[in-house]
Amino acid sequence: MEFNDILIKRRAINHFDPNKGVDEALLKAIIEDGAKAPSSYNLQPYKLKVFRDPDEKAALRKLAFDQPKVTEAPVVLMVLADRDGWKEGNETLEKVFTGFVDAGGMQPDQKEWFVGTTAGLYGQSDESAQAFANKNAGLFAMSLMYAASHHGLHTHPMDGFDHAAVKMEFNIPDQYWIPMLIAIGHLKPGAEVYPKGWRQSYDEIVLD
Amino acid sequence: MEFNDILIKRRAINHFDPNKGVDEALLKAIIEDGAKAPSSYNLQPYKLKVFRDPDEKAALRKLAFDQPKVTEAPVVLMVLADRDGWKEGNETLEKVFTGFVDAGGMQPDQKEWFVGTTAGLYGQSDESAQAFANKNAGLFAMSLMYAASHHGLHTHPMDGFDHAAVKMEFNIPDQYWIPMLIAIGHLKPGAEVYPKGWRQSYDEIVLD
Repeated sequence: MEFNDILIKRRAINHFDPNKGVDEALLKAIIEDGAKAPSSYNLQPYKLKVFRDPDEKAALRKLAFDQPKVTEAPVVLMVLADRDGWKEGNETLEKVFTGFVDAGGMQPDQKEWFVGTTAGLYGQSDESAQAFANKNAGLFAMSLMYAASHHGLHTHPMDGFDHAAVKMEFNIPDQYWIPMLIAIGHLKPGAEVYPKGWRQSYDEIVLD
Repeated sequence: MEFNDILIKRRAINHFDPNKGVDEALLKAIIEDGAKAPSSYNLQPYKLKVFRDPDEKAALRKLAFDQPKVTEAPVVLMVLADRDGWKEGNETLEKVFTGFVDAGGMQPDQKEWFVGTTAGLYGQSDESAQAFANKNAGLFAMSLMYAASHHGLHTHPMDGFDHAAVKMEFNIPDQYWIPMLIAIGHLKPGAEVYPKGWRQSYDEIVLD
């Protein structure tokens, strides 16, 4: 799809068709398209949990202001932002470093320098680790939602939920923050799609 | 541009053509396209500072591991994530609420409920405010970088800089975190663009 069309068509819809699913192959394509987003040192500090099961979605809905879209959408993704994604031993970081070595961009003995740099930038405080995890998860989530539009689906990002209760209910390890849930599916027949809300203009966004 | 092409062509390039500028009208179009991103309750807790001045870019480069792209790119954007964007009195929040009322979605007397909700979700701790600001800035930054690709430009997001020193040098108010700088411009003639690095597959991203 043309990017201009995606910009206009991507709306956070409120009513999903509960009778129209998203099959595994399509979901895989959307997630892998989304994963083409850039990230800090390519560390990709994010994971997803996929909710399709009606009982699990019902449990999630209870902790998310009882929003009907949580159960109506065929798929709800829980985005997990990894606050430990800069640490030596983190599975993804280790794969990234191996990839740098394999591509000839780094020598194996540069690992100490590499993990020292990521620790200095992202691990110097809880504040910096939280920023690291959430900004990168935001890049990925936006890429994923545009990819869903490109594949003809609708989405709705939600962060109106009880964060602590959701972590406990679904046994989410403490290293992860949950920046948002993303409902994915098809528009309910007959449901109205409202125009995009107000956005900051160039002059409002840019500070002197 | 086709979204598929954008996904492939968007690369964090290292070499910008210092002789080819990005004029104001084009930059405005890219930023306003980027601003079509969704955000928590449409609060859009982000601002930009635009760096074009060679002396300012030189000062920024010194605090960013001396990366040549900071001065070679005609434009460097500093993304500012507003950790106070959920507070009553915040300029953007007030405009968003007024917009809800004007669109008929809320009554003026629902303001207390609205700011109570945003404070409960995003202002309950420094941790939640940091997540709020950075995830939304990430959504915006990704949308902006894809918009730049759509308009035929290249970008490079950078968060390898001395955060505290940059805030001090450029008098950034404490309410803002700086998730990244984004260099924007044209590819330097003859510069090589490397293929995208390794990305997590569906099976690697999705947790059981």
